[in-house]
Amino acid sequence: MYRTHNNGQLRAADINKEVTLSGWVQKTRDKGFMVWVDLRDRYGITQLIFDEERTPKEVMEKATKLGREFVIQVKGTVIERESKNPNMPTGDVEILVSELTILNESLTPPFTIEDKTDGGEDLRMKYRYLDIRRKPVRENLIFRHKVAIAVRNYLSKEGFVEVETPYLIKSTPEGARDFVVPSRMNEGQFYALPQSPQTFKQLLMVGGLDKYFQIVKCFRDEDLRADRQPEFTQIDCEMAFVEQEDILNAFEGLTKHLLKEINGVEISEFPRMTYDEAMAKYGNDKPDIRFGMEFGELNAVAQHKDFNVFNQAELVVGIAVPGGNTFTRKEIDTLIDWLKRPQIGALGMVYVRCNEDGTYKSSVDKFYDQTDLAKWADVTGAKPGDLICVLSGDKNKTRAQLSALRMHLAEELGLRKSNEFAPLWVVDFPLLEWDEETERYHAMHHPFTSPKPGQLELLATNPGEVKANAYDLVLNGNEIGGGSIRIHNKKTQALMFDYLGFTSEEAKAQFGFLMDAFQYGAPPHGGIAFGLDRLVAILGGQETIRDFIAFPKNNAGRDVMIDAPAPIDAKQLEELHLKINLKH
Amino acid sequence: MYRTHNNGQLRAADINKEVTLSGWVQKTRDKGFMVWVDLRDRYGITQLIFDEERTPKEVMEKATKLGREFVIQVKGTVIERESKNPNMPTGDVEILVSELTILNESLTPPFTIEDKTDGGEDLRMKYRYLDIRRKPVRENLIFRHKVAIAVRNYLSKEGFVEVETPYLIKSTPEGARDFVVPSRMNEGQFYALPQSPQTFKQLLMVGGLDKYFQIVKCFRDEDLRADRQPEFTQIDCEMAFVEQEDILNAFEGLTKHLLKEINGVEISEFPRMTYDEAMAKYGNDKPDIRFGMEFGELNAVAQHKDFNVFNQAELVVGIAVPGGNTFTRKEIDTLIDWLKRPQIGALGMVYVRCNEDGTYKSSVDKFYDQTDLAKWADVTGAKPGDLICVLSGDKNKTRAQLSALRMHLAEELGLRKSNEFAPLWVVDFPLLEWDEETERYHAMHHPFTSPKPGQLELLATNPGEVKANAYDLVLNGNEIGGGSIRIHNKKTQALMFDYLGFTSEEAKAQFGFLMDAFQYGAPPHGGIAFGLDRLVAILGGQETIRDFIAFPKNNAGRDVMIDAPAPIDAKQLEELHLKINLKH
Repeated sequence: MYRTHNNGQLRAADINKEVTLSGWVQKTRDKGFMVWVDLRDRYGITQLIFDEERTPKEVMEKATKLGREFVIQVKGTVIERESKNPNMPTGDVEILVSELTILNESLTPPFTIEDKTDGGEDLRMKYRYLDIRRKPVRENLIFRHKVAIAVRNYLSKEGFVEVETPYLIKSTPEGARDFVVPSRMNEGQFYALPQSPQTFKQLLMVGGLDKYFQIVKCFRDEDLRADRQPEFTQIDCEMAFVEQEDILNAFEGLTKHLLKEINGVEISEFPRMTYDEAMAKYGNDKPDIRFGMEFGELNAVAQHKDFNVFNQAELVVGIAVPGGNTFTRKEIDTLIDWLKRPQIGALGMVYVRCNEDGTYKSSVDKFYDQTDLAKWADVTGAKPGDLICVLSGDKNKTRAQLSALRMHLAEELGLRKSNEFAPLWVVDFPLLEWDEETERYHAMHHPFTSPKPGQLELLATNPGEVKANAYDLVLNGNEIGGGSIRIHNKKTQALMFDYLGFTSEEAKAQFGFLMDAFQYGAPPHGGIAFGLDRLVAILGGQETIRDFIAFPKNNAGRDVMIDAPAPIDAKQLEELHLKINLKH
Repeated sequence: MYRTHNNGQLRAADINKEVTLSGWVQKTRDKGFMVWVDLRDRYGITQLIFDEERTPKEVMEKATKLGREFVIQVKGTVIERESKNPNMPTGDVEILVSELTILNESLTPPFTIEDKTDGGEDLRMKYRYLDIRRKPVRENLIFRHKVAIAVRNYLSKEGFVEVETPYLIKSTPEGARDFVVPSRMNEGQFYALPQSPQTFKQLLMVGGLDKYFQIVKCFRDEDLRADRQPEFTQIDCEMAFVEQEDILNAFEGLTKHLLKEINGVEISEFPRMTYDEAMAKYGNDKPDIRFGMEFGELNAVAQHKDFNVFNQAELVVGIAVPGGNTFTRKEIDTLIDWLKRPQIGALGMVYVRCNEDGTYKSSVDKFYDQTDLAKWADVTGAKPGDLICVLSGDKNKTRAQLSALRMHLAEELGLRKSNEFAPLWVVDFPLLEWDEETERYHAMHHPFTSPKPGQLELLATNPGEVKANAYDLVLNGNEIGGGSIRIHNKKTQALMFDYLGFTSEEAKAQFGFLMDAFQYGAPPHGGIAFGLDRLVAILGGQETIRDFIAFPKNNAGRDVMIDAPAPIDAKQLEELHLKINLKH
């Protein structure tokens, strides 16, 4: 047996016990006549002591040769420490070692195995197995497990059944790109890896399973943006015989349970907001409502003077930055420069200082008087000491710019507190969104989303106005879940495919099985999917999903540790009926 | 709201309640003045009643038009049934319907939605969503969920952490064929889908995670045998600082827990048997020990006469079939024909009838007398009334043939009882096995398996004799789990790769990351993986894994419901830098 106890376990009550411990050498202190070793494992650190007088000579000698990250096993006696360490759970005791076995040696690791390491991102990814030895990474992985099992037990108790859907499915060129898998046994044919189990979960509802969930890997072959992974994990859920209200209640229940069980936070009822309201108030469909700075639309109180910039704008909109009047001129200029960067693309910013004495000083005093500015303060909710920031222009672009500014300022002002949780349902999403590139409407959620009752007719005349039975769950400014009530009859589904530009042959080839299924008594159904990576990161008070994934890929989609992807054998290619078609 | 109750819920105590129910029309009985409808959902069946006197006329009319599998919603009053059905949980009541809404119509399904259906395998696979409506399939999926969550909660309580390992990894041509995934962003390169998370779980041990598990999909591109799936699910586990004994204890604990929690069966301690013993006693490394018929080796008592068939055989071995003396001559001839089929390949069978009076009558009475046959009975444990079946020839082949006969007879005699559970550890597997085709030794388990201490040297002189720290968990004649203690130092691993025919370049290219990891303080570790599909089937008292998979593939690796795999777009191929290389 390698150990009788782990390294986080021994206490004063264990003094005089003979124990066997195993683990990694965190560090050694060699004073000649005495050697101390910090022995580490997943559970903690226990101090070992070797001393000239009490330790056999050959053991003492071996101890002086231990290097960082050596794997050792020791036998010894638990003794009371002379200088106790109240910061360590095992800090009252140490082990007087009588036997020492080196189980494995270690080269000097390329970075320190400490909470704060000297290793950069690239190095840590290449040696991820060493990075995982660091407590913050290890704790993140354990945290992820706790969240996942809490989800499973909650849903299971609520009558949901976890069903495994297939990974080798069929490619559907709609939506993001699929990863495909050539079939050896079916020449010239390919499986695709699922972007989500969407159609399968709907078929499970047709199959009468009633309440389904699955924690499942999904795949998207996209050009990776920061913090996106080609493989990611969803909590995928579907229910039959439900309306939107039933789903919101069911998954508000799940999220409340997680916040309570994982974070000890109780939230009574999640606020709800329509998509239109979210866009008007926050310029964003996933607003962070942990703080204010709500948008105030100023068209009515800013387009009556000679300031053409505003007069020609579709939207004039501002936010009141709490305490922003303390910003120096230089700080405000920096803000304006930040807004003008191509990523944001604003042309400039108008601002109003709200002085403590109730007067205003604006960058457009030439055009607006104190009465005007008082109205702006009223609309944006600005108080003395605040700074009003105003942008104008095209409605959608301006909202996006002001939303970016709002988030940027909140970050700077420390308003995005990681231990505060502000969930929000955003409902009534548009069914379609306009795609600039292809110059047509696309399904905002996916082609299986049901329009709101009675709105199907609008498709012909005013497609952008059609609202869907679609909803997102937002937590601290991140979309953590999204879903919809689905179409469940063949005619409507066919109409939708037709509207989205599928020929009936394409619709049949790709989704014929689903439309067939709808002919055999499909029940009304709907669902939601949570992004587990993101959810875990946010519950963990962080925003980088990579820190919660054991073996993430880099931004080029590579696993730098195992060096994948990689070329394959010519024989393998031949068996798969493939040839490489290099461009260069 | 679509329902106030589900269809398995209402009881006599609910009489007079106003309820809303939804579900599928299981069947209707129309007597003109009265119509009864069985309304079905996942939870059960509730009887609806429409009658001329009490039901509104238009509702009555609609009811007469309901077809099988129509999806309906009804409102009505719970009333006491005139003729109660004690076989149904809801059999005391029925619903007097006042409102009826048809939520969706249904074509006549291609097979009946009944426990015993008229649909054949192919039809049921094509319309799997209808097959899932049948109670046996639905209950199997729910059963699988129960097993999976019991596994997760048990391991979690034991301190195991479920960690998700990547699906897009690197192809390693050793072992079975990989499914590969072309990379769009890395021209000419491929990911592979994991055959198991083997190397990743070992890296998690190097990373100090100590106790890992994962219920995870794995992939093998093999020519499919019956009841094999290209994607299958494993309960994958690994522990650090363990010896074989620790692992056997940990997972005996898991299996006991499952048998108790899922099947209500308590088993105190699992028997253990070496591989050599299993082969000698049962001719099989996964013996079904629910019944006897252990092998008796007869060389010593059968090679002293003039019967050349036995004298020239490497092995003469028999089993005593309990009560087999009742077999007619014709039945025995049928058995012999069965043995002679090419799948089994025996040349013949010698048999001995053990008469109730203590005498023997054999098919080789010409050569052997009563004293000889009495010795055979003694060695095989035959009692009066039994039949001794004896095969001879090459040791390995003869054992395999007699094992097949033993299983066949057990099946015929009803000795393989699905509600009996006989777990067994088979230990001390050989490290290597001889491959006839390539004429060299292969790793029996995988190249990461550690030889038994001190046996590494045997590799050079007597490779077939080297035993590994490898073990299988067998349940009712099926391998449900297998694992080993791993190699954890670079030198031994390199030696092993070398022995298995890898050049050091190949070893480095494919497994360099693992051997690198072994240099930085890899702890001793080992693990096991259970086949979840098989485990669930056996716990469920069945042997066909397909019945426990929601959307299985057929023997050609096709999903006949969604029709995958399928050709992909020329544009997709081009983006992936591929050309199809058709042979025909």
